[in-house]
Amino acid sequence: MNPYQAPLTDMRFLLEQVFAAPDTWAALPAVAEAVDLDTALAILEEAAKISSELIHPLNRSGDEQGVLHQGDKVITPDGFKAVYEQYSQGGWVGLCGEPEFGGMGMPKMLGVLVDEMAYSACNAFTLYGSLTAGAALCIKAHGSETLKQTYLPKLYSGEWSGAMDMTEPQAGSDLRNIRTRAVPQDDGSYLINGSKIFITGGDHDLTDNVIHLVLAKLPGSQGISLFLVPKLTVDAKGELGGSNGVSVGAIEHKMGLKASATCVMNFDDARGYLIGEADRGLVCMFTMMNYERLAIGIQGLGSAQAGYQMAADYAKERQQGIAAGGSPTGSTSDPILVHGDVRRMLLTIRAMTEAGRALAVYTGQQLDLAKYGEGELQARAAANVGLLTPVAKAFLTDRGLDATIMAQQVFGGHGYIRETGIEQLVRDTRIAQIYEGTNGIQAIDFLGRKTTGDDLAALTAFVGDLRTQIGDLSRVEPAHKQAVTERLDSLLAAADYINRHKRSQPALVNACAVDFLDAFGYSLYGFYWLLMADAAAVHPDPDFGAQKRYLANFYFDKLLPKADWHLAQVNAGDSAIMAMPAEFF
Amino acid sequence: MNPYQAPLTDMRFLLEQVFAAPDTWAALPAVAEAVDLDTALAILEEAAKISSELIHPLNRSGDEQGVLHQGDKVITPDGFKAVYEQYSQGGWVGLCGEPEFGGMGMPKMLGVLVDEMAYSACNAFTLYGSLTAGAALCIKAHGSETLKQTYLPKLYSGEWSGAMDMTEPQAGSDLRNIRTRAVPQDDGSYLINGSKIFITGGDHDLTDNVIHLVLAKLPGSQGISLFLVPKLTVDAKGELGGSNGVSVGAIEHKMGLKASATCVMNFDDARGYLIGEADRGLVCMFTMMNYERLAIGIQGLGSAQAGYQMAADYAKERQQGIAAGGSPTGSTSDPILVHGDVRRMLLTIRAMTEAGRALAVYTGQQLDLAKYGEGELQARAAANVGLLTPVAKAFLTDRGLDATIMAQQVFGGHGYIRETGIEQLVRDTRIAQIYEGTNGIQAIDFLGRKTTGDDLAALTAFVGDLRTQIGDLSRVEPAHKQAVTERLDSLLAAADYINRHKRSQPALVNACAVDFLDAFGYSLYGFYWLLMADAAAVHPDPDFGAQKRYLANFYFDKLLPKADWHLAQVNAGDSAIMAMPAEFF
Repeated sequence: MNPYQAPLTDMRFLLEQVFAAPDTWAALPAVAEAVDLDTALAILEEAAKISSELIHPLNRSGDEQGVLHQGDKVITPDGFKAVYEQYSQGGWVGLCGEPEFGGMGMPKMLGVLVDEMAYSACNAFTLYGSLTAGAALCIKAHGSETLKQTYLPKLYSGEWSGAMDMTEPQAGSDLRNIRTRAVPQDDGSYLINGSKIFITGGDHDLTDNVIHLVLAKLPGSQGISLFLVPKLTVDAKGELGGSNGVSVGAIEHKMGLKASATCVMNFDDARGYLIGEADRGLVCMFTMMNYERLAIGIQGLGSAQAGYQMAADYAKERQQGIAAGGSPTGSTSDPILVHGDVRRMLLTIRAMTEAGRALAVYTGQQLDLAKYGEGELQARAAANVGLLTPVAKAFLTDRGLDATIMAQQVFGGHGYIRETGIEQLVRDTRIAQIYEGTNGIQAIDFLGRKTTGDDLAALTAFVGDLRTQIGDLSRVEPAHKQAVTERLDSLLAAADYINRHKRSQPALVNACAVDFLDAFGYSLYGFYWLLMADAAAVHPDPDFGAQKRYLANFYFDKLLPKADWHLAQVNAGDSAIMAMPAEFF
Repeated sequence: MNPYQAPLTDMRFLLEQVFAAPDTWAALPAVAEAVDLDTALAILEEAAKISSELIHPLNRSGDEQGVLHQGDKVITPDGFKAVYEQYSQGGWVGLCGEPEFGGMGMPKMLGVLVDEMAYSACNAFTLYGSLTAGAALCIKAHGSETLKQTYLPKLYSGEWSGAMDMTEPQAGSDLRNIRTRAVPQDDGSYLINGSKIFITGGDHDLTDNVIHLVLAKLPGSQGISLFLVPKLTVDAKGELGGSNGVSVGAIEHKMGLKASATCVMNFDDARGYLIGEADRGLVCMFTMMNYERLAIGIQGLGSAQAGYQMAADYAKERQQGIAAGGSPTGSTSDPILVHGDVRRMLLTIRAMTEAGRALAVYTGQQLDLAKYGEGELQARAAANVGLLTPVAKAFLTDRGLDATIMAQQVFGGHGYIRETGIEQLVRDTRIAQIYEGTNGIQAIDFLGRKTTGDDLAALTAFVGDLRTQIGDLSRVEPAHKQAVTERLDSLLAAADYINRHKRSQPALVNACAVDFLDAFGYSLYGFYWLLMADAAAVHPDPDFGAQKRYLANFYFDKLLPKADWHLAQVNAGDSAIMAMPAEFF
């Protein structure tokens, strides 16, 4: 296989031409101090190098070898520990972390692109650092000063890693059911008892300590609180002590992501420290969850990009048949790229993936504005982040699986055997539609809370902003502008109907949520293709500009109309879904 | 997990009420001699028992253990050999085989249902018998009397098995490139030399001999001929001799289907026997291929049905959250089946799978009419078989993967771990979209040969027949009849456009084929839902009738409109697909 080649030109195009990152950064003093375009591009180049040269070589062997559970140790595949140390020492775990605790203070707009490259190179490896960064974010937002001082520098430096301990066998999507208990001690700490399942990076040999963020209930309370529970005790000076009653019950055997340690974790009188207020743990955890949701969206994006490269390379090399209408080179065998159906698959993956990258960068930009901005700008950005997070998680991962399956199809029979590696990508990325809240849960969050939850205020403002931006574009086809605008209007109309009927038809939101999110996703990607086509028209490299216009045309001709099918499903309502009695299933 | 439960009531409904199988059989003397409805139902019951009690228990362990290649032996997982013997002795391999050679002479209309149950129970196990039946079909159609006498009884009895040896590393979809050579000998036989890859059931320990049907070229010819090449020599009396120069180079390591031996086969001066005429091997092989294509479609169908059962069982047991609008039982936790999104997934799988079963049974009926019928009826049936085979293969397997992925999603995190078994179903069924001709190839066959290849004659006749049948239905919603009719008309219009432009736009067929097939598939399923809803209205069990009407309503509300998106893609033509230069990919 060709090694992974990061799409640096596309990334720069988004930062510089499409979303004017340098302007955003210059306007935010804390960010301006850390980064300008040149620095950002240098960071991307270095990340590309690390992703292709260090991380990607672990991918296949990690899948073959898997994680081992021997005695009380969880052992990652050969090479993971050494590469993780190099990765940590390079500052990548703390890339977007707070400078006052040793983070690099880089904007998320850049961070999403670094994450994408790492996920393209190896899904399993990248999760370890991603969960660590998410845990740090949560501690930073809600932890006491002592917790921050003690834990953040070690997390940002990658010496310790993080994990998010929510699920129990009886409590998955419904966290009300958790049974893990926290009993307050005289010294202000808590003793935690219980079991958690499906804990990504719950234990492993990459770092000296694993910092668990654990949901548990206080005595006599049905509320849920959040606790920091280190695997090994940490004394007041921050030195490591002995075992803290945190152990691995088993590791899960999974469809893919075999180099990621997914653990059953047992807490036996493990000492924990409250994060945030008692009974308000879900709010705190959601800081981490929302971070991870975007990160997992980017897992889908990274897999899609890797799949595209593998399939495009294969399609340019593999010779079968000749072009309809005759070989362009007069050969008796052409590369399969000449065939319309192969092109259809590659163009679909690529058009979806490039728009997906735009969504990721745009969401990163909104996160940066929400974190570092002020006033109305900050408030709007925060609302946009709330709106876009479930969309980024669900739509990027659903399209990520579509992309890897299509890429596998391009390989024909060679796609089904392990040697070519494309089947691993399908298996690895499949989980992204499930964890951090299934994509159904994301859609219900989007339609139930983020959209109808405020009587469409955030959605209406967001769509209004898109319409204004579309109006300003002068270098794209008017028909394409109209196609996107019409879909956005139809979406608002559908949302309005649901909002007006959500009480009289209580199942409406749940039943229509996935299709509503998908319709929104296809429409939003249409908006990003307008932005990209407009910017590409004046790109200094005319070949690059031409590529984007070909892709935009493909998107508008072939993919945007899928929004209509999803809208038709939304508009068909919930009656056909809810009518059949349970016993008939 | 609950063991597999065959959908016998649904199967009987299709045979008896929807497609009037007893009338068809009674009108075909050779079939009438072999079977009536009571016999057919008894066979289905026995097949259900064998599938759930004998075959299904092999499924998980077969995946865990896989096939071993030790020395020159290929060893199937524990239990496979014993069960295969029982299965063979029960006559299941020869179920639809010719009675004069020991087959049971059953109609294909029944055979597809038996196949579905076996595939639901275990994809990998079922392939061995399926390839054997396909090889027998080819020998019966094109082999000499001696070959038939020598090989058919042993294949139908399951003592020997069959394999189809087409692919070589440089020759996959494009068989012109094969390099395997056949040199004629004085005794009328041939010596075969070459290598084949991806040979399903190429070698194993289930049977005493493996009968390979091998594509090879004669000296000085670019034509392709077909040869019967036994693994062990067979003398004039049909007794087994020694090695015939057929050996296994390796077994493939695959994404799934791990209990199916996928072999690299080497032929070193292996003695072979010409099947059919020299240089006409592809025509002969297509007899087997067409059989296998329908069988592989049924692999997709069987997987979808198994996935539905697993997901529906889980959704009825697993409790998370309460119903929107309040728990119907006043509980604090409801089964997840109360949630609209979970119902949407289950209803989608079920509505697609039941229509898929109708397609399979209908195609089986057409095969029986084409084989045993006479005159115009026979000719029309043969044309329908040609038209429907690529659709059954591609649409059933594409929807099979969709179904298993949706079923996996219902399981949430539990769907990604190996223990629940649903992830295996995804991995096992994925190959069905690829082998026996990728689904892209099927679509090109459908649009390029079967539809525009005869200037729409077969399609127009087929659609005309559907329209007549729709007109005769009196117990369904007129709006549903209209919805299907309109799509069929749009399809004919799209096909007509392509047919008129196929020469001036040579890429049009290839670029639009997959969407055309999908649009046809969704429309055709609409037709089957009309048939089923109409028959269900007078079903003796009112609950059964109600179920079908709920599902039909769901299909028309939610799924049929997907045809429009695929039609929109077809109507958008090939320009956006073919425009981008190859170097931009």
